[in-house]
Amino acid sequence: MIYLDNAATTKPNEKALKAAEKYLTEEFYNPSGLYKSGYSLSLQLKEARKNIVSLIADESKFSCVFTSCGTEADNQAIFCGGRRGNIVTTMGEHSALFEAVNESKQRGIEVRFANLNSDGSVDCEHLLSLVDDKTSLVSVIHVNNETGAINNISDIAQKVKAKNKFTLFHSDGVQAFGKIAFRLTKDIDLYSVSAHKIGGIKGVGALIKRKDLVLKPLIYGGGQEENLRSGTENVFGIKCFEFAAKDKFSGLNQAFDRIFALKKLFCLLLDSTMFDIISPENGSPYIISVAAKGVRGETILHEVDDKGLIIGTGSACSSNSNKRYSRVMLACGLDKQIADGILRISFSDETTEDEVRTAAKILNETVENRRRLMA
Amino acid sequence: MIYLDNAATTKPNEKALKAAEKYLTEEFYNPSGLYKSGYSLSLQLKEARKNIVSLIADESKFSCVFTSCGTEADNQAIFCGGRRGNIVTTMGEHSALFEAVNESKQRGIEVRFANLNSDGSVDCEHLLSLVDDKTSLVSVIHVNNETGAINNISDIAQKVKAKNKFTLFHSDGVQAFGKIAFRLTKDIDLYSVSAHKIGGIKGVGALIKRKDLVLKPLIYGGGQEENLRSGTENVFGIKCFEFAAKDKFSGLNQAFDRIFALKKLFCLLLDSTMFDIISPENGSPYIISVAAKGVRGETILHEVDDKGLIIGTGSACSSNSNKRYSRVMLACGLDKQIADGILRISFSDETTEDEVRTAAKILNETVENRRRLMA
Repeated sequence: MIYLDNAATTKPNEKALKAAEKYLTEEFYNPSGLYKSGYSLSLQLKEARKNIVSLIADESKFSCVFTSCGTEADNQAIFCGGRRGNIVTTMGEHSALFEAVNESKQRGIEVRFANLNSDGSVDCEHLLSLVDDKTSLVSVIHVNNETGAINNISDIAQKVKAKNKFTLFHSDGVQAFGKIAFRLTKDIDLYSVSAHKIGGIKGVGALIKRKDLVLKPLIYGGGQEENLRSGTENVFGIKCFEFAAKDKFSGLNQAFDRIFALKKLFCLLLDSTMFDIISPENGSPYIISVAAKGVRGETILHEVDDKGLIIGTGSACSSNSNKRYSRVMLACGLDKQIADGILRISFSDETTEDEVRTAAKILNETVENRRRLMA
Repeated sequence: MIYLDNAATTKPNEKALKAAEKYLTEEFYNPSGLYKSGYSLSLQLKEARKNIVSLIADESKFSCVFTSCGTEADNQAIFCGGRRGNIVTTMGEHSALFEAVNESKQRGIEVRFANLNSDGSVDCEHLLSLVDDKTSLVSVIHVNNETGAINNISDIAQKVKAKNKFTLFHSDGVQAFGKIAFRLTKDIDLYSVSAHKIGGIKGVGALIKRKDLVLKPLIYGGGQEENLRSGTENVFGIKCFEFAAKDKFSGLNQAFDRIFALKKLFCLLLDSTMFDIISPENGSPYIISVAAKGVRGETILHEVDDKGLIIGTGSACSSNSNKRYSRVMLACGLDKQIADGILRISFSDETTEDEVRTAAKILNETVENRRRLMA
């Protein structure tokens, strides 16, 4: 089986699992316990926090709140960061952000959406034109999860602050963290990450935040996570995240270069008479969206699945017919016929050249065959 | 090491971990994936939902939303179930509930607290007197997490509905689920449970709900959990919860009887000149709160820790001096001097008679020694 849906989830990192295993067996205590073995875990969580933040930011200026997933981190940023006036975001956000701001609208916050360029990146000028003195939060996805387009969030954040220095700037960094080289700059207040996209396990995320930023919790209770996120800490999952993240960042640039070459190869190998490449060349090499012209993406997904290739479609498809077309792809300006044939192929740093060659071959054959049957 | 802080967290069930391990290795896919191995996981999550609900309720009438912990389940019940008028709850709630309703107050909902009896159970008459035609939600903890007192929630729910049939009834069942025999009755709308209190892992809980109840999500996004809780599902944690819960319920009554006898033995073995038993005889046998007269609970906790015995204090202690005394213990009518000496000893079905005998001996010796030093 060739697994190329790594943007949906990655296989957990075996070394990280092994190293964190003891938190399921010997060190199973509650970190809030006042006894030594409980307190020790609270110190180990602090260490995890510091280690994860330091991978992407100056730990004297940033900290993080561990959450149960990237979605929860996005929700906390929106509901607790954007509490008045208006929120400015983009048409290219992950549904965790998009559905949260739609709920904010129900709660009386005005929400403004910036247009996308054809590759899925945000139209910066349009975004900036939406920011005014009532804007409490701006949220821009770092790497678009469907096309891989990279938004220059440092630059955007700086320009947003120049227009309104009281506006908070948040970015969903789930598809960027551990994949593209990046450090948080002073204008970025909040940044969401997820463990299971980089070899951690499902059920863990974090909202990285400027240390001096006062934020409300989304979940109230025993006061864990410095009172920003209550509930007994998922020690195993958090330590697993720490180990997987450290591993990922230690080889980030080499992996990037290798995957960049694989993406190029893959695009070359795909038959250009049958596939349009939607993803930009300078986007994240880990995500490639292609449109299989004239066929349905979902049909191709199932056919290649039968042939041993696992890929995604561009959209979060569901039986709900309103969701047949990806909201993001339509916002990129694709017509419905093209949007219907979208496939998302996503790599991890475990992806091999052989897998990429075989995947391209299976895709070419499958679409050719399908088109022949339809002719 | 003798571990008697099982109300804080239990050691994960080894069989459950073993059975769920494959979801970290081979079956690591995203359950939202449209390919076969993704879809298969979505079916396995459905199965987990059905199996967990059926342990405690008629699965044709109840379903559940998997959450990241009991705290999140409580928060969803409060913030999404108690959206207007007033919320009626008790002074004996876990902080997950207590802090959530305090936040509701900030959001303009009136919150009314019912008094406790001296054992930590709710004063039912007082509770009912607080319910009126504007009450949107009543929440009563099933088993008090500090004293083990059991509230007769079926009876309370019935009486609440008789007063106002539109009021939702929620109960935090975290310390009851898998420990005391109980089935959800028709008047209970929402019930919170947690995995790591019964041999599951930290990071998983569930909000069991009446199927026909329309509830809003607390966390918005990709629409997982039938749109009631977004975020990639924690498959490993959920399946582990399912396996641990099935195991726990299969021996629930035998375990109850055995632990009941251990509780009795423990109370007999404790030197009554030094310890007051706070927990009621007819409470959950898994939780025993005692007051070590004239000494500080936290001091004793540390001393017995050094002697190989892990226990808790009654309160969610913190360096914050406002929290020196347990809110629940004061609401039971204990004076501050007694509340200062509270210790919580909590059993699991792995606790042995030998451990209980040794624990009582260590506690007697330690308090005696401390009192001698203070004399």
